[in-house]
Amino acid sequence: MTQRDELLTGQDVRLACRRGEFAAQTSGLAAGFAQANLVVLPKDVAYDFLLFCRRNPKPCPLLDVTEAGSPVPVQAAADADLRTDAPRYCVWEHGELVDEPTDIAGRWRDDFVSFVIGCSFTFEAALLRAGVPVRHIEQGVNVPMYRTNIECQPAGMFRGPLVVSMRPLKPADAIRAVQITSRYPAVHGAPVHLGSPEQIGIADLSRPDFGDAVEIRDGEIPVFWACGVTPQAVAMATKSPLMITHSPGCMFVTDLRDETLAVE
Amino acid sequence: MTQRDELLTGQDVRLACRRGEFAAQTSGLAAGFAQANLVVLPKDVAYDFLLFCRRNPKPCPLLDVTEAGSPVPVQAAADADLRTDAPRYCVWEHGELVDEPTDIAGRWRDDFVSFVIGCSFTFEAALLRAGVPVRHIEQGVNVPMYRTNIECQPAGMFRGPLVVSMRPLKPADAIRAVQITSRYPAVHGAPVHLGSPEQIGIADLSRPDFGDAVEIRDGEIPVFWACGVTPQAVAMATKSPLMITHSPGCMFVTDLRDETLAVE
Repeated sequence: MTQRDELLTGQDVRLACRRGEFAAQTSGLAAGFAQANLVVLPKDVAYDFLLFCRRNPKPCPLLDVTEAGSPVPVQAAADADLRTDAPRYCVWEHGELVDEPTDIAGRWRDDFVSFVIGCSFTFEAALLRAGVPVRHIEQGVNVPMYRTNIECQPAGMFRGPLVVSMRPLKPADAIRAVQITSRYPAVHGAPVHLGSPEQIGIADLSRPDFGDAVEIRDGEIPVFWACGVTPQAVAMATKSPLMITHSPGCMFVTDLRDETLAVE
Repeated sequence: MTQRDELLTGQDVRLACRRGEFAAQTSGLAAGFAQANLVVLPKDVAYDFLLFCRRNPKPCPLLDVTEAGSPVPVQAAADADLRTDAPRYCVWEHGELVDEPTDIAGRWRDDFVSFVIGCSFTFEAALLRAGVPVRHIEQGVNVPMYRTNIECQPAGMFRGPLVVSMRPLKPADAIRAVQITSRYPAVHGAPVHLGSPEQIGIADLSRPDFGDAVEIRDGEIPVFWACGVTPQAVAMATKSPLMITHSPGCMFVTDLRDETLAVE
């Protein structure tokens, strides 16, 4: 049994991160447990970011918001510690990535508020169960993500472009994927675009802004979903003095079951 | 007030047809009442056609099946007479269109079974309510319909190509249209295809097999739904001795409210 095989629950992954034994991508780990994007901000800008999430629910569907100073996301994982339990973090200062540590305990402040944001891994599990193929999983790489020319609705200092993830699908699978992901508004929901990438400002699908390029086969169309990496593009665009996020693909794994995030 | 303005309910339209006062396309009449495709067959082949509908629910979603010999669709419109209450009919003999009468009273037989099949007009009303434009309605023409290279699942003698209707939409509207029409499985449900027409055997969108061509604007993609005209393509392909249908666009208007056909 490999170390990855032992990471069967959200708690298993979190504790491995906390012990410093795991600092990699989380795709495929703790099957059935919802993984999440993470944004940590000082309290004085938390209201504006909360409003930003309210105004941009497709890229920023909130699963939990912590009390100021508390590293415990009570609704998402009551025994977790957000300072240590993600595999890797990104520290942004004035729009620049200044560090990618495996914990943020040394940087923690009493005025930090953490936002736990739904992740497309949840709906990918539902797609796979329905027989809809997910190319980047087939290819064993991170999902390709792109900055678009769609501006998020700003709130206070927070503004920036919508980031989307892309999965190439045959048309019938694209239709099925719309149906399936519509059931998961808490993890980005239905696609925001399909077909021509130029229409949303993406010049070259083979050069994603985050993640890895994937093969697009004959007869497939690119299907685009709002992506939880959007706050990182926002961090770059707004040059906020301090924002800490997860590292793309290295998610915070919750205790929430994927299926509890489905409507109906 | 014009004659059309007076046709406010399904019953109004049916009685106008019965009196010989109306024999035209029904799009836009009796808003809120479900319109239907019609197939009339001798009892000896009714089982096979019922099985065909069961095997091909997207083109042939059944709203009602009459008792043999009865022209009354009890579930769809209890006071209707299917011999007179559609605006215009098509009579098919051995795969050939031999007549397009405004009633079939003189042709009626005691062994006729009628199949009342859901129509996309119901979901078009839902699309319009959601602000999704419907081009052929904007242009005041019949929806464009195309034979595809997708074979229906055969049943007994009944076999033939799937016929689809097409509506051009911007990608975001196409995604919304998948969501909306998924709620209406009784009237063809979600699209069967979107994007490249060649993939389903349609060579030229400007030359539909039934109905009228519509404008496709820059940035729009064609979206294809299974169509209730499929039985007419089946009549042609199977060369059944006798099949009577409605004339395309000249629908039988029921007493069923569109909204009662939505799931959820």
